[in-house]
Parts: sequence; structure tokens; C-alpha cells
Amino acid sequence: MLQIGEVMKAWKKNIRQVIPYVPGEQPNCADMVKLNTNECPYPPAPGVIAAAKAFEPETLRLYPAFPENTNLVEALAKFYHLKKEQIFVGVGSDDVLANIFLTFFNSDKPILFPNISYSFYSVWADVYRIPYECPALDENFCIRPEDYKKENGGVIFPNPNAPTSIYMPLMQVEEIVAANPDVVVVIDEAYIDFGGQSALSLIDKYDNLLIVQTFSKSRAMAGARIGFAMGNAELIKAMNDVKYSINSYTLNAPSLAMGAAAVEDVEYFGETLAKIVNTREEAKRRLSALGFSFPDSKTNFLFATHKEVAAKEIFEYLKTKNIYVRYFSTPGIDNYLRITIGTDVEMERLYTALEEFLN
Amino acid sequence: MLQIGEVMKAWKKNIRQVIPYVPGEQPNCADMVKLNTNECPYPPAPGVIAAAKAFEPETLRLYPAFPENTNLVEALAKFYHLKKEQIFVGVGSDDVLANIFLTFFNSDKPILFPNISYSFYSVWADVYRIPYECPALDENFCIRPEDYKKENGGVIFPNPNAPTSIYMPLMQVEEIVAANPDVVVVIDEAYIDFGGQSALSLIDKYDNLLIVQTFSKSRAMAGARIGFAMGNAELIKAMNDVKYSINSYTLNAPSLAMGAAAVEDVEYFGETLAKIVNTREEAKRRLSALGFSFPDSKTNFLFATHKEVAAKEIFEYLKTKNIYVRYFSTPGIDNYLRITIGTDVEMERLYTALEEFLN
Repeated sequence: MLQIGEVMKAWKKNIRQVIPYVPGEQPNCADMVKLNTNECPYPPAPGVIAAAKAFEPETLRLYPAFPENTNLVEALAKFYHLKKEQIFVGVGSDDVLANIFLTFFNSDKPILFPNISYSFYSVWADVYRIPYECPALDENFCIRPEDYKKENGGVIFPNPNAPTSIYMPLMQVEEIVAANPDVVVVIDEAYIDFGGQSALSLIDKYDNLLIVQTFSKSRAMAGARIGFAMGNAELIKAMNDVKYSINSYTLNAPSLAMGAAAVEDVEYFGETLAKIVNTREEAKRRLSALGFSFPDSKTNFLFATHKEVAAKEIFEYLKTKNIYVRYFSTPGIDNYLRITIGTDVEMERLYTALEEFLN
Repeated sequence: MLQIGEVMKAWKKNIRQVIPYVPGEQPNCADMVKLNTNECPYPPAPGVIAAAKAFEPETLRLYPAFPENTNLVEALAKFYHLKKEQIFVGVGSDDVLANIFLTFFNSDKPILFPNISYSFYSVWADVYRIPYECPALDENFCIRPEDYKKENGGVIFPNPNAPTSIYMPLMQVEEIVAANPDVVVVIDEAYIDFGGQSALSLIDKYDNLLIVQTFSKSRAMAGARIGFAMGNAELIKAMNDVKYSINSYTLNAPSLAMGAAAVEDVEYFGETLAKIVNTREEAKRRLSALGFSFPDSKTNFLFATHKEVAAKEIFEYLKTKNIYVRYFSTPGIDNYLRITIGTDVEMERLYTALEEFLN
């Protein structure tokens, strides 16, 4: 901040000006119920715990392996029935998505993404100076495929969308992809494992389609920072070329080992997802009974509004009970709460607190 | 690659074209002597091993803490007698340096770095479309401070330089910094702990000076991916603003815990450095006796040429003995080997192999 009488130093003029993303608060107190960042309420797979215990920290003196040559990429290729050359891995899906913006969105035409969506898209576009347009969701918070049929420099949207929790059927996703053969189309599937159908089945048909997923939600490994993209080998090679131009050793040795173990434990993955989906469906019943309404979530969170009480008031009240949910002051969604699905015990604490406050 | 008769698809036209960095080979065979990537031959500090064992993988379900609020930044601040606001941490010093390029090198004027230096500088400049000029080292591979007194958009150089291993006395470093008050000046001190004097003492005097260091060499943690920058709080804030615009959770939970432990173990750090420096000085004697010459290294490697035998021949021969050193085909240094200082046992195997080949 420039003070009166102070002359701005020349070196400050070339600092890249950004509006920094403000992440959700990360409270850390005993007895809290943390339903504000869509983390998984269950621990990572037993295989991950075993891999962590088996990791030999003495080996940290050596650089990690290149991602493309690791057990992690092999495990993902096997799980998704792909070739290794069709998979890119990065330090969380944010790293993967930012790399996609830098690699593929180099047109003078604007890229397109929904006006209510993952808030990082506009931040990346700004930092990399990519023009963008944001078609509005319809009155039910749904993406309108016809909005993505205009000339553009690329298309990206989450499916299911966040924070709305709404899943777009695969047929509509394909409608958007098919309408955009001249640009790279990215489906950000951070929440797809909780009930949607992945567009992965389309990558052989559309060579300009990228699917991005993450270990932070359904695989319970937000703390490990692992995300990945899947698409045709030419897209993946372009991403690796850019990535190796910035930081050739990205995922560290523990993440590579633990990530592979997470993918290999197919049974635990299925069980965990089933538990979260069950709790979510129960949450829909319980919160409806308390006067909330919400889109039919296919994610691990509900996007809920109350018929009488303002979202911000509920948000503040819950905090006094050590229960953290996410509130956005963004116009259009400022009467909604994003509530992560926790364990059944955590959710009971939420229902009890809400009953006390609302009744 | 375009085939005859094939029409280039429109989406390919907007792919960012880069010349990817080609890292050194990462062989992995039993009984090898790996002296090719300047890793530390000793394991990380006992405190790091203990932190790894104490890490609870169950906590991976949660996002990691923000770097600025972690034990890692606190430990660095204590060790270097700085405020937390003066320290930026990233996923290896490559991540830190790339972020510096993006944050500060936004002038139309060229940035300056030596023609023989860390090969990533030109790669980052290319990927972020930053103009650059590369003043030539002198005939003894030394940086000439007067070359950095012209108009420019920023200055960066390693001290000691790589792959030359040559340390520039602090007085000359300051001469360059003092000549460039209008741009950000970055000293890349990846190897400073092996015998040089850090320019950290200058950051209070020059508010446009950034010091970058890494855990990959002197702290034996290449596999953890941790690097950091130190400078005035305004520079650090600008870096964090850009970083949070790209990936707000970067260092993963295990790295944050192990990194803090590494910094806290001051005694082990000193012992390890002393061992490497002793082995390096012995290596200078032994390799001189074998007909090699090299600049007076203040790093954990020697930049060596032989009076009779071509570097490439020696490099190829050593590979047949499972001994890996680094060879660059770059004109001007294509008769040099970069030989990392290993353990005494590893170095004896190197000397023995060289004696067999050269005598």
C-alpha cells in the first residue's frame, strides 16, 4: 500500500496483479464437526495406511520418480482401463487444471465456463491472462448446453457442478463436447464418484476431451495433493511438456506410493462411497423435514437453502456450536449453504443443532 | 506429428509450444553409484525419520494447512532469524523459482541470467513468454558483474553457479544487487550451504532482493519436494498471492511435517555438510592426481575436465561400471563432467574405475 509522500519503487510496477483466491476457513479445534471443505469423513484405504507405514524416509534423499513412470500412473491406467500415456498426474486437481489452462487455453477467443461454478476458473484465467465468458445457469441452477455452442477458445465445467451439486446427464455433456470440435473441452469431475456417470467413456470418440479427477474427495486423500487428467495421448503429452517446463519433479515420493495404494484398494473405495451416499440420502430426508430445500445432489455435499431463515444466520449459529459448513456471499447463491456429508455421528450433531436453532 | 494428407485439427493450434526440459537420467539398479543429480549421499536427519514414522496417514483425508501457518515456515523463520512473513515455501525450488518468474518478471525488457547456468531459467522464460538475455561467462566460467549493469526486466543467477560450481564472493553479489534497484534480483542459492556465504544478510538493505534455497541438496530431501524463498514481506506477499491463485494447497501434509523436522535438527545438518565438504576436498586431490582439472567448487559437485580423455568417453565408460555422473552436450561445456560428491565408499569406487580407464 502506497503511503502519502512515498514514491512507488520501480520494481513494484512489474508485479503480476492478481485477486487472490480466498479458500474456506480451516478451523482446527477439538470436538469440531468440519463440513466445510468437502473432505471425506473416512480415512484413506487400509492399503494407504500400510503404504505410509512401509515408506522408507531414508529414500527421501533421492529425487522422486517421474510421474509417468510410477506405480501411481500404472494403478490409474489399470483401474480406468487406459494406457499410461493417457494419464497426467499433478499436485491436486488444482495443479492439473491450472496446467490445462496454461497448455490449451491460448486463443484470443474467450473460454467458457458457468457463472456459478468452481471459483478458481476465473482466477486461473486472470493470472494467465486468458479471456473468458461465463454463461448464466438457468433458474434451477442447471447448465444450459446451448450456451456452449458459440465460438470460444475452450470449454470447462464441473460435472456435477459445484457448489450447486447438480449432475448433468452424460447425453447433455456429449452434446456440449460434440458442439466444440475445435477447442479443448474439459470436464472437471471432482465429485463424479458419488453417483454420476463419468464422461471418460467419450475420450476415444473425442480427441479434444479431457477428464479431470482428484484424490481429495472420494479417495479421502486431500492431504496428499493428487489430481489427474485423462484424455488422448496427444493431449497428455502436451500437458507433460508444459509441466516439465515448470517443475519436472512434482509429486513427492510419499504421495506417489500412497496414491497407488489408494487406487489398488477397489473394495474399500466402493464401501466408502456407499456409506457417504447413504448418509447423503438420509441427510436429504432430515434436512427437508427441517425446512431446507436443495438440488438433488450427486456429490458429497448438499447445496441447501432454508424456507425461513437466512443462510448466513444458520452458518453463524452453527459455528457457535463448533459445526463448520461453507457459506458464500456471492450474489445469487448468498442464501445457500454448502454442507459436506460427514459421518452419521457428525450429521446427527448437525441435525440436533439445526433443530435447536430452527424450532 | 502431422501425417501426409492429414489436416491439422483446430484445437491443436492453441497448444502452448514448449521445448521441454530434459532432466538427467534416473537409473535405478542395484549396486549403482549415483553421482549424477547432486543428491545428498546421506539420509535426512534423524528428526525427519522420526517425523515420518510419527505421521498419521489417517489425517490425509483433510486438506493440509496453508504453508504460511505451518511448523515448516516457523522452523525456517527461527533458523534464519526472519519473520514468518519473509518466507515463501513451494514444491521444490523449481516451483518457487517458476513462481518468481510469473510474479515478478513482467517487464518488456529482457531479464538477465548467465549463458551457462541452471538450464530451467530459459525454459521458464519461454513458457511464460518473458524476454531474456544471457551474458556470457568469462574464460574461467565466472560471472562478470559488469554484464548485469544494463537496463533489464530482472536478474537471476545461482550462487554458487551450476554446473560450474563457482562461488561469487558476497561483495560482487552485492555489486550486482546494488546496480539493479529497479527490478527484482534473485539469488538462487541451491548450493550455498556447502561453503559459500549467503546473500541473506542483504535482504534488509535491498527490498528488491530474493534468496531462494532448497531442501533437495544440503538437507537430503529431494524426494520431499521443498524449496523456499526469503525476502522482504512485500515480495513474499506478492508471491503468495500468485501462488494461491494457482494452487492454494501445495505442500502436502507429510512434507510439511518432515520439512520442519529437518530444519530443527541443526546439529545433524552441520555434521552432514562437514562430511560432504571433506569428501569434496579429498576428491579434488584424487581427481587432480588422475589428470582432471576443475574450478574450485563450493558445492556438492565438481565440474571436471580431463587433460587427455574426452568427457563423453569417460561418462560412457563409467556407465558400464554402473557409475552415473552428468554429462552435458551443450557447446562450451561439452568436455566437462558434473560429478556429485557421494560417500567416501562411493567415491573410492569412482577413483578405482577412473584409474583403470585412464592408466
